[in-house]
Amino acid sequence: MSAATRTGKLLGVGVGPGDPELMTLKAARALAEADVIAHFAKAGNTSHSRAIAAAHMRSGVIELPLHYPVTTELPKCGTGYRDAIRDFYDEAAGKIAAHLAAGCVVAVISEGDPLFYGSYMHLHTRLASRFPTEIIAGVTGMSGCWSAAGMPIAQGDDVFTVLPATLSEDELTRRLAEADAAVVMKVGRHLSKLRRALATSGRLPRAIYVERGTMTDAKMIPLIAKPDDDAPYFAVVLVPGWEERP
Amino acid sequence: MSAATRTGKLLGVGVGPGDPELMTLKAARALAEADVIAHFAKAGNTSHSRAIAAAHMRSGVIELPLHYPVTTELPKCGTGYRDAIRDFYDEAAGKIAAHLAAGCVVAVISEGDPLFYGSYMHLHTRLASRFPTEIIAGVTGMSGCWSAAGMPIAQGDDVFTVLPATLSEDELTRRLAEADAAVVMKVGRHLSKLRRALATSGRLPRAIYVERGTMTDAKMIPLIAKPDDDAPYFAVVLVPGWEERP
Repeated sequence: MSAATRTGKLLGVGVGPGDPELMTLKAARALAEADVIAHFAKAGNTSHSRAIAAAHMRSGVIELPLHYPVTTELPKCGTGYRDAIRDFYDEAAGKIAAHLAAGCVVAVISEGDPLFYGSYMHLHTRLASRFPTEIIAGVTGMSGCWSAAGMPIAQGDDVFTVLPATLSEDELTRRLAEADAAVVMKVGRHLSKLRRALATSGRLPRAIYVERGTMTDAKMIPLIAKPDDDAPYFAVVLVPGWEERP
Repeated sequence: MSAATRTGKLLGVGVGPGDPELMTLKAARALAEADVIAHFAKAGNTSHSRAIAAAHMRSGVIELPLHYPVTTELPKCGTGYRDAIRDFYDEAAGKIAAHLAAGCVVAVISEGDPLFYGSYMHLHTRLASRFPTEIIAGVTGMSGCWSAAGMPIAQGDDVFTVLPATLSEDELTRRLAEADAAVVMKVGRHLSKLRRALATSGRLPRAIYVERGTMTDAKMIPLIAKPDDDAPYFAVVLVPGWEERP
């Protein structure tokens, strides 16, 4: 069958949290069989997700790097940032649509799980009504973190919550007090606020601070043992539930 | 090196949500290399997790089935149930400890992710202080569900919450209203209550009902299109966030 008469297909391929072995068998097969492989990257940076996937890619496969626009000079609260990001995803979806219309299978590499806080979602919402799609679920970054820490996170009837550290101190405090187990993401410059919210909600003693959770140079320490409040953007804090163990 | 002088190691091996291809490369390798493979099963039932793992197990590997006690005649609120479950995990940990003390690598098969609502956690807490352990993160059942449904679940600064349907109607309503995105587990006989809580919190129109999420006979429909309130214990309801898409 020639490419022109085939139906193209969009694949959202979760490649897991970082360790290339934490990719699924299905993701490895999808990468090996795809006609086109797209990946997101910061302009000028090598792509971490592409490095995870590289061992499974056919030599000669068509690669489609999608470079995020440089938006550091635009305030995040303004419309300029929002417009730049929207235009970027529109353009990326357009490039992929051209390959799909030509009958190609296009795999989009997604760190973690494609539909859980992933950039792939922006392409999916633009293309899923026009082309067949398939999502290959992946191991999330947070699973990678609590597994590397060997820390049981939630059990039984626990309420489990994912919170962005960007919330106000009051909101963080209230939501941490109400959750049995929690993961706080995007810690970065919010760590001192988060530390206060954990203390006020009584959750500080069990909180674990994690940097580069599934890398070989991962850093995992009880937050109370971390002396300062400097943290990279992608650091997370884990608050385990399951306090009453049988 | 003889087995007696080796150090045993306990592996919590996540085998993913059901589709055998959604196991990680690392899990497949761990199962192929283990000396002993343990799995949980209901007495008299064939084990679903063992079936997922079977293709990767060496012929002749030592298998250690761990049969949950028959507790259907004990009320869940009483101490009888709790004692029976605790004794079961104590005994299971004892059997595994004997293999670890003999220098064996023991892999415990875990559906989904070992430390996220998994039975493996009960063995981990009993053994991790005495033996080296390693957790191999897996794709969770809920990732399998929203991926099979092709439904983006959470993005950006969304608050994401996992709730057990066992909560009271007031609690479910309040927590659903406060979460941007949610997954409700253990739906079973709680579906009519959950339906009311979703309606009161304004989340019913977007809720998706999922049965056997990652099986070939999966059932996924908008909850408003489901005519009755009969549901199996393991059914889940997905409430997607990310309402304001760029």
